Amino acid sequence: MSQPEFKYLPKLRKKLFEVVFGTDTRAGKLFDIVLLWAIVLSVLSVMLESVSEIKERFGYALFISEWLFTILFTIEYTLRLTITAKPKKYAFSFLGIVDLLALLPTYLTLVVAGGSYLVVIRSIRLLRIFRILKLGRYLREASVLSNALSASRHKILVFLGAVVTLVMIMGTLMYMIEGGESGFTSIPRSIYWAIVTVTTVGYGDIAPQTVFGQFVASALMLMGYAIIAVPTGIVTTELANAEKEKKESEAKRACSECGKSGHERDAVYCKYCSAKL
Amino acid sequence: MSQPEFKYLPKLRKKLFEVVFGTDTRAGKLFDIVLLWAIVLSVLSVMLESVSEIKERFGYALFISEWLFTILFTIEYTLRLTITAKPKKYAFSFLGIVDLLALLPTYLTLVVAGGSYLVVIRSIRLLRIFRILKLGRYLREASVLSNALSASRHKILVFLGAVVTLVMIMGTLMYMIEGGESGFTSIPRSIYWAIVTVTTVGYGDIAPQTVFGQFVASALMLMGYAIIAVPTGIVTTELANAEKEKKESEAKRACSECGKSGHERDAVYCKYCSAKL
Amino acid sequence: MSQPEFKYLPKLRKKLFEVVFGTDTRAGKLFDIVLLWAIVLSVLSVMLESVSEIKERFGYALFISEWLFTILFTIEYTLRLTITAKPKKYAFSFLGIVDLLALLPTYLTLVVAGGSYLVVIRSIRLLRIFRILKLGRYLREASVLSNALSASRHKILVFLGAVVTLVMIMGTLMYMIEGGESGFTSIPRSIYWAIVTVTTVGYGDIAPQTVFGQFVASALMLMGYAIIAVPTGIVTTELANAEKEKKESEAKRACSECGKSGHERDAVYCKYCSAKL
Amino acid sequence: MSQPEFKYLPKLRKKLFEVVFGTDTRAGKLFDIVLLWAIVLSVLSVMLESVSEIKERFGYALFISEWLFTILFTIEYTLRLTITAKPKKYAFSFLGIVDLLALLPTYLTLVVAGGSYLVVIRSIRLLRIFRILKLGRYLREASVLSNALSASRHKILVFLGAVVTLVMIMGTLMYMIEGGESGFTSIPRSIYWAIVTVTTVGYGDIAPQTVFGQFVASALMLMGYAIIAVPTGIVTTELANAEKEKKESEAKRACSECGKSGHERDAVYCKYCSAKL
Repeated sequence: MSQPEFKYLPKLRKKLFEVVFGTDTRAGKLFDIVLLWAIVLSVLSVMLESVSEIKERFGYALFISEWLFTILFTIEYTLRLTITAKPKKYAFSFLGIVDLLALLPTYLTLVVAGGSYLVVIRSIRLLRIFRILKLGRYLREASVLSNALSASRHKILVFLGAVVTLVMIMGTLMYMIEGGESGFTSIPRSIYWAIVTVTTVGYGDIAPQTVFGQFVASALMLMGYAIIAVPTGIVTTELANAEKEKKESEAKRACSECGKSGHERDAVYCKYCSAKL
Repeated sequence: MSQPEFKYLPKLRKKLFEVVFGTDTRAGKLFDIVLLWAIVLSVLSVMLESVSEIKERFGYALFISEWLFTILFTIEYTLRLTITAKPKKYAFSFLGIVDLLALLPTYLTLVVAGGSYLVVIRSIRLLRIFRILKLGRYLREASVLSNALSASRHKILVFLGAVVTLVMIMGTLMYMIEGGESGFTSIPRSIYWAIVTVTTVGYGDIAPQTVFGQFVASALMLMGYAIIAVPTGIVTTELANAEKEKKESEAKRACSECGKSGHERDAVYCKYCSAKL
Repeated sequence: MSQPEFKYLPKLRKKLFEVVFGTDTRAGKLFDIVLLWAIVLSVLSVMLESVSEIKERFGYALFISEWLFTILFTIEYTLRLTITAKPKKYAFSFLGIVDLLALLPTYLTLVVAGGSYLVVIRSIRLLRIFRILKLGRYLREASVLSNALSASRHKILVFLGAVVTLVMIMGTLMYMIEGGESGFTSIPRSIYWAIVTVTTVGYGDIAPQTVFGQFVASALMLMGYAIIAVPTGIVTTELANAEKEKKESEAKRACSECGKSGHERDAVYCKYCSAKL
Repeated sequence: MSQPEFKYLPKLRKKLFEVVFGTDTRAGKLFDIVLLWAIVLSVLSVMLESVSEIKERFGYALFISEWLFTILFTIEYTLRLTITAKPKKYAFSFLGIVDLLALLPTYLTLVVAGGSYLVVIRSIRLLRIFRILKLGRYLREASVLSNALSASRHKILVFLGAVVTLVMIMGTLMYMIEGGESGFTSIPRSIYWAIVTVTTVGYGDIAPQTVFGQFVASALMLMGYAIIAVPTGIVTTELANAEKEKKESEAKRACSECGKSGHERDAVYCKYCSAKL
């Protein structure tokens, strides 16, 4: 290749990088919006394919569109890999792995049949929508949420352990009380019923018929009613803590020019005197 | 028109304004109560019309009453438009738009059939009840609630995004596991099942029958159980913040006579020394 | 009557008062426990009478026992009225009215048939159990709970108003979408379905069958999922406030002897130096 | 026995104690993990035995494996009793009682038939898993949870009392309204329905059919919707208190060397200067 081309390439690459990875430029925003619509349509076409009447009538069109979208996304993935400066970092990032996983199912159907529904994994790519909206705001909120959830994971594990032990014992008890007639045909099935009941889902496909069984079930329901308060209490307390910490860290961040505090963590300029923080 | 009539008209208009828009005078209160009962009766008559036995017996009476109420509300709407000083402001206010929407369905039935049930939109007009009760108190509480909800909208959107992605993936998974026999006939229907399950509604019209399906469903239920803690935690935290801010703003509002603070935001006189605030 | 009898009567009355109304003496405690068991047995016999197999076999015994209990409670009620110094105050107190209402149903069956099940109102008398347990402690907790609920009643009314409007509109919408085939036979019935769904009860006796109906139902469920966070948030905030106020009022109550604070509102002696507060 | 053996025995006992009760050494950890898998497999085999197809094919193998596990756990229990210095303390501790209860069901089958399913009580032994994970952390969280729950037990009892009274009255009411046709065949059954409804489980095996019954049921659902807020509020408030107290007690615990506070309750060394606390 000649020298000019060498000069030209980095420019094109930079331009492409702005379009594909960026969201600030007009072209970058447009790229993201088109991509989102492509993801929506591709996920939608997989879903519609599973409806038998639609598959009979539009099966071929849906088959074609699925391959078109897959080829499109393959090009996009290759592009992302080639134009980023650190292809490894992208390939092993959360979004990078999801991008790859979203391609595989369609190619898999060439080898094994029936895997095409896995394409629904593409819906995770829809989380890209938060990039188009005011990204920072949502990421901040999501990080408050995930911090709170991760701070409460020990408590929630203890709680889940207690719930699992409870449903195992109550399920076995109900199996012994009700016997096979009212749907409690085995212990695993009775445990499934206990989970359906304690979480207040209550399908009703399995329900106690004997008086004593209904009594035990009532006790389990009232327990479930009280138990649901526990994870709520845990998450609320941790969320309140996370909010407080966020506020305190904002209160600590003072402007070196005017001395006023209360700047958000990702603010770059002081909101009172516009000095750089 | 003669001069006296010109003088008389503004007076009548003012009087009418007090009756129609005001709630302080005896006549204004009476007007609001009569209006509320008219709305209740009109909504009730639409509902009863949908019960086939009642329609057969009282169909004609209900038809007449619907038109009577509609004409009554049309007169009221015209009156409101003519006597207010700013008809445009009223017409485009929330209550003004609802008042108009509450009229349209009946007139629509002259053109298209079957639209008459839309009259149920009149039930939004029942919110006028808060005007008759101590208005300020309820508006204040409603504003605390809506502030808290609007402050938590980013977190709730992030949360809803995660829930939607979860039900799409779990729904597809269940479609692949269960197949069409136990009701999981298509992916959209399986996603509908996943929503019914994760929100703990649990109709039971679609329920997993295979052991593995029940295992995955149990996992989804326990997830739903933990997930429901998140919006509760968000709203509770924001409500506590909103309450705190309300108290702080009340604490800041001091009486210039006696110096005592703690006056509610809409108080006009000091509650300790009766001086005007 | 002779003079000695006059002297004797107030003593007997005082003694009886201690037994019937008091809980501190041995006899008073015993009276309360016997009474509670009588209430439990009487409510239980009414319940069992409704089970047809039991009524066939033990109908006569249950009929006799119901009259025995009623006569017993009538004697108790008359006793309470005569020995208390303020019969009017007792008769119109909450417990007094419940005591009277618990008698009436059985006498009513002499005039009208079928009213005997109203005897179940006696179960409210079971709340007397809190008198036997450490009374003060539970009354205090109950008052914290009821204060919190009453402080949040304006917010909860606003919230219930919004929910009622929502279910009316969604119910009508579903009636228009689904038609009568899948159980949505009238608007009132559809509103009943909307309440069953938004509260996440989900019986499944009425469930949408069309794709669009399931889509609207899913939206309603997700709304119900978010909406349930609101009353929880309200009650939690108010409970936290009530707890805080209780603590503050305890912190204010200082002993005049040793100066230490933190005494509970109903404490009579200082818990650090035993001086009377 | 000779002198050397006497010397040797305490050493072996100490070694065994480390393996059986300890979790710090490599052997102790391995022992716990093997034990956990044995518990899991043993509980699983009991569950599978209840599935009729599996029992037919693998019944004998499951029977053998159950006895093998039981003999294994009997040896383990005897070992624990003999090597600990205080056998009585272990035998009457929570874990000790559970260990014994986990053995009995299998031996019981020698005398009475059908008791073998009680073996599921072994699942409580799975709580040993928290010993293998960072024990202290989970015990601390579990103690925060149980403190909060025990602090709120008075409020929760008052609440449960109110709920039980409510379902008894509403159940009877629905029995009187609906009669036996739609499943409300007796008062106990109607009370069971009321519990199923108020806890938002909603099986749908019993559901009101009359218009008035559906109206009363709707009221009960909306009540249940508001009522569920109460235990959540109680637990959240107490959890927040427990968290606060934990932090305050950590804030009070200062290092005597560097003076810094904020050490967790079970910390042995200062995390800032490594001095012993």
